Amino acid sequence: MKKLALRCIFVFLLAANTALAADALPSWNDTAPKKAIIAFVEEVTKEGSPDFVPQSERIATFDNDGTLWAEQPIYFQYTFIFDRIRALAPQHPEWKSEEPFASVLKDDLKDALSGGDKTVLGMFMATQSGMTPDEFGKVVTDWITTARHPRTRRLYTEMAYQPMLELLAYLRANAFKTFIVSGGGVDFMRPWSEKVYGIPPEQVVGSSIKTKFEFRGGKPVLIYVPELDFIDNSDGKPIGIQSRIGRRPIASFGNSDGDLQMMQWTSAGSGPRFCLYVHHTDAKREWAYDRESVVGRLDKGLDEALVKGWTVVSMKDDWKIVYPFEKE
Amino acid sequence: MKKLALRCIFVFLLAANTALAADALPSWNDTAPKKAIIAFVEEVTKEGSPDFVPQSERIATFDNDGTLWAEQPIYFQYTFIFDRIRALAPQHPEWKSEEPFASVLKDDLKDALSGGDKTVLGMFMATQSGMTPDEFGKVVTDWITTARHPRTRRLYTEMAYQPMLELLAYLRANAFKTFIVSGGGVDFMRPWSEKVYGIPPEQVVGSSIKTKFEFRGGKPVLIYVPELDFIDNSDGKPIGIQSRIGRRPIASFGNSDGDLQMMQWTSAGSGPRFCLYVHHTDAKREWAYDRESVVGRLDKGLDEALVKGWTVVSMKDDWKIVYPFEKE
Repeated sequence: MKKLALRCIFVFLLAANTALAADALPSWNDTAPKKAIIAFVEEVTKEGSPDFVPQSERIATFDNDGTLWAEQPIYFQYTFIFDRIRALAPQHPEWKSEEPFASVLKDDLKDALSGGDKTVLGMFMATQSGMTPDEFGKVVTDWITTARHPRTRRLYTEMAYQPMLELLAYLRANAFKTFIVSGGGVDFMRPWSEKVYGIPPEQVVGSSIKTKFEFRGGKPVLIYVPELDFIDNSDGKPIGIQSRIGRRPIASFGNSDGDLQMMQWTSAGSGPRFCLYVHHTDAKREWAYDRESVVGRLDKGLDEALVKGWTVVSMKDDWKIVYPFEKE
Repeated sequence: MKKLALRCIFVFLLAANTALAADALPSWNDTAPKKAIIAFVEEVTKEGSPDFVPQSERIATFDNDGTLWAEQPIYFQYTFIFDRIRALAPQHPEWKSEEPFASVLKDDLKDALSGGDKTVLGMFMATQSGMTPDEFGKVVTDWITTARHPRTRRLYTEMAYQPMLELLAYLRANAFKTFIVSGGGVDFMRPWSEKVYGIPPEQVVGSSIKTKFEFRGGKPVLIYVPELDFIDNSDGKPIGIQSRIGRRPIASFGNSDGDLQMMQWTSAGSGPRFCLYVHHTDAKREWAYDRESVVGRLDKGLDEALVKGWTVVSMKDDWKIVYPFEKE
């Protein structure tokens, strides 16, 4: 009798545990990606299993733009930079005739971006240099809590993907340490990453410009200087992971070719590994784009995912909802 | 009666709590530094107190050499580098006539170091370049688990300071996140920091050379290249803290002038702050040195600590024991 009761409790606990795992991802359809995620997490967290991974090694890295929140029609940080240029223009009369600033001020945003990454980097530096981290953090916070997306009219942070928020929480509930590893500016993400994603500043790796340490009015300050520190994209992702985190992730999540090297680095480690691409297939609820897109192109990555058996999420088919506000 | 019982329980709990705090630092004498540490921790962890600091902001940064473990007669990593040069010499016949390598191979270690930081950096690069992080990590682990200190004949990791190990654990028990911020090589510290200090690799900030990402035999690898990435000393400490951690510490611990800017940056933040210098005053159990020392000089920092009221630990007077093995 006692034995049976114990066995019942055990079966009940097992069932409860599986139910709990299923409930942790309510915005995911019961399709292959959700099953693959749960199978991986259960595999690495089951003590005694040959694939068990100690808690301290449960490192999961996430791209940000297009993986944790939307990125169309242009990376949200670009809109922030354009808004900063407009706000700073009165202090920079020379920008009226200086590209790419002149194009931004005339709202020719396509022209402003036509110079590629180097031009964007120049604008990035121009809007951040000379400020302290505290000052810049305040500017970011003011913008992120007021600026609205042109299509949805929502705050940008409301365009974080609900299924990915659930995935972050599910991994953390299983003792994973979640990191952002993004080509975006680290100082642009850190002021809100903890509130929106539950990822603290020290677990955000991103692109950056340098700072210098000096004294102003007898007080020590750090000041951003217009000098590139680190580009955390493509090859830069595994490099940034090694430099800032110092261990190879066991799971990586991305959506573009810029995440491919992170996936390659992750999957080449020994033991169980999980790589997942978010594939933007939902023209109605989000956007549909991949091989031909300028923003967030997924071409080589998609081919390699198919060959290597990485999980590919079709937003249209695998997600019940995309944004948290769809629950309203 | 009931009221009295409750009050008794309350008083008992208060006493137990203080006792617990005291017991967390058994290798510290009951002198001013221990009292200052406990007062600070109780102040920032007491909910409702005006000085309460939320858990996520309880960032504590520790220098390594001379603060968490000994650093005499030369930084332990220098000994590692010399041992590496000796081990690699057969593959580098040119080192026999090339400085500083020639001096190392002749055991003229003073001559080898006479070129200053730049020379050391060159040796650092020569012994790490061309390897993968996994390969280098294995070399470090092999060395750190076998090499012995010339005076104590102990493993170098046995020369971590027992009072500081207790302090790290005490802070973590109070929900602090503990980081190393060291001028030493990040790749030299990470392989053993978790085991020795309970500080995981991702919470170690240090000096580094760059890596490149490439494919070898179809496998993605990172390879160290002989190019400076970051020097995490003096001004580099607040810069590294901002870049890697992204928040200002509320407590910092160091032992030399190379930690001064970290202390200045920490103490200039608003709200309660704690800075502590380990002062090497114990010629018998450890070493006695400060203003005139080549290794770990504490001169300007000592002056500023006195002016600013930072806590200065006299190893001789404030620590019951220095090394864990004294308990044997």
